[in-house]
Amino acid sequence: MRTIDWNDASDSIVMIDQTLLPVEYKVIECNTLSSLCEAIRSLRIRGAPALGAAGAFGIALAASLSSAGNMDDLMRDLNVAANTIKATRPTAVNLAWGVDRVIDATADAYDVEGIRDIVLSEARRIADEDVATNKMIGKHGAKLLKDGDTVMTYCNAGRMACVDWGTALGVVRSAVGSGKRINVIACETRPLNQGSRITAWELMQDKIPVTLITDSMAGHVMRKGMVDKIIVGADRITGDAVFNKIGTYTLSVLAKEHEIPFYIAAPVSTFDFEGWEETVTIELRDEDELRFCRGVQTAPMDVKVYNPAFDATPMENISGIITEKGVFYPPFLLDEVLM
Amino acid sequence: MRTIDWNDASDSIVMIDQTLLPVEYKVIECNTLSSLCEAIRSLRIRGAPALGAAGAFGIALAASLSSAGNMDDLMRDLNVAANTIKATRPTAVNLAWGVDRVIDATADAYDVEGIRDIVLSEARRIADEDVATNKMIGKHGAKLLKDGDTVMTYCNAGRMACVDWGTALGVVRSAVGSGKRINVIACETRPLNQGSRITAWELMQDKIPVTLITDSMAGHVMRKGMVDKIIVGADRITGDAVFNKIGTYTLSVLAKEHEIPFYIAAPVSTFDFEGWEETVTIELRDEDELRFCRGVQTAPMDVKVYNPAFDATPMENISGIITEKGVFYPPFLLDEVLM
Repeated sequence: MRTIDWNDASDSIVMIDQTLLPVEYKVIECNTLSSLCEAIRSLRIRGAPALGAAGAFGIALAASLSSAGNMDDLMRDLNVAANTIKATRPTAVNLAWGVDRVIDATADAYDVEGIRDIVLSEARRIADEDVATNKMIGKHGAKLLKDGDTVMTYCNAGRMACVDWGTALGVVRSAVGSGKRINVIACETRPLNQGSRITAWELMQDKIPVTLITDSMAGHVMRKGMVDKIIVGADRITGDAVFNKIGTYTLSVLAKEHEIPFYIAAPVSTFDFEGWEETVTIELRDEDELRFCRGVQTAPMDVKVYNPAFDATPMENISGIITEKGVFYPPFLLDEVLM
Repeated sequence: MRTIDWNDASDSIVMIDQTLLPVEYKVIECNTLSSLCEAIRSLRIRGAPALGAAGAFGIALAASLSSAGNMDDLMRDLNVAANTIKATRPTAVNLAWGVDRVIDATADAYDVEGIRDIVLSEARRIADEDVATNKMIGKHGAKLLKDGDTVMTYCNAGRMACVDWGTALGVVRSAVGSGKRINVIACETRPLNQGSRITAWELMQDKIPVTLITDSMAGHVMRKGMVDKIIVGADRITGDAVFNKIGTYTLSVLAKEHEIPFYIAAPVSTFDFEGWEETVTIELRDEDELRFCRGVQTAPMDVKVYNPAFDATPMENISGIITEKGVFYPPFLLDEVLM
């Protein structure tokens, strides 16, 4: 199944619970807004494009749950839901993008039932488009990879970060699909291990060779000549920086030092055309994420912790941005991406 | 108590079991060579200087256990023990250094009892000297720190890596002891979390302010101007590189990018004057260290893993080496250190 989808039988959102991977593969249903918000906040669903679909389906869910009898009341309910959903992960621009696109689509509705129909069909369209977008990202990005390349990746910008196929791992999948032999080095991605838990699992499901390392080994393996290219995803791209999982910036510095191409793979919806690095709020997550590793204590209970979810990689550290519209190169004129 | 010591009452080695920290503080006794080797291999005792003492006390233990009635037989037993101990951690030069120094001291013995006396007194001397050496490292290094500095460190080059006081953290302790306010940022140090488990614990015991981050956050916090100096330990220093816990090289590249001084704190016994990077064997550790975090699964069971214990940081990335003989600066002429 897709990472996230709508279940017509129960009027609810279904998703793979990514916090349980790789030990358990479990599909969960969200039939209330609070269960969806909990799933987003606790990363049962995560990854920029998947969050776009989650936001969109969240508005469809709110419409389905609302007992409003007129358009004004229904739109009020949807706008409340929109704000609630957006607040769960403030840095992820796609979440707000998915929510807003569905809200905006209601402008075409003439009555309450029309709003309900439109929000669901628009959410489905966002999900379908995400798959098509990722296939295009894959097609453009695959041209950058040579037969025999080893690609380092970080966190999970794969099928499980999207509705399907993946962005960074979609590029790898498309290259493999066109007959190239690609090896992947997955960084485990502390503190939540999306690399070791999800990326490694996802690639092994597809029989794409993957080697797991700790994040701290990245410099060593680059210095040893074990990495040909680095491809990661993005949560938000402003005019001056790429926001992605904390640790991405470290890899970009290492890539520059070792003259290894450092690519971002992300849909155009990730671009925040009005934003600049200084305007973006970086989400600070629970300190216990560093005091415990999947429930087991790894640090003193009362140690002070700094746990930002994302970092900003300045544009000068990026070799290219792979989008569904093609690959963009420095100086990354955002007007070109918009065209 | 000291991290490692000799117990006269039971003729055995006593040590703090560092694998249980910070959840449990437990002192264990090794009264056989195999229990000592197991303790070294599974990192119940770790850290270059502490391993020097462990190797030295290991020979004292072998002498105590041997039933040899003449000098030849006893020396044969000690040499067998020496090889067994050294093989447990091949990259750590101090382990072999401690073993060899005790073996060499037996040259002064005239009889079997003389050998037994000499090995124990030499091992005790090594332990005492380690504490004195670290205090000297601290004294020299403290001059490099300013009141209010934030020092990033990696792994544990503290009291628990030594017999007492510490190398990198010894510098911090000495600076704090002279009245400077120092904050420490401890990287958790995957895969075995010596930073989050041991460094954070050790500093909190001494009420030195410490903030825990993941290794991957190092670049981000440097870019944000949160780090004034970086001080780490070393497991072996060859003519061209410093071998230390995997991840050290990554920090050195980040330090260079952000123009942050990157210091090594290590006793002269860490220098391998005849060695070069290419001659050093880097220990590859158990792949399960990345598939499990303290017993909990964090990756697919059959994922391929690369798990080197150390990396090499080339001398050009190092701002200074703090030793008991003073601070050495580029171009790091080893003859100067020897003098």
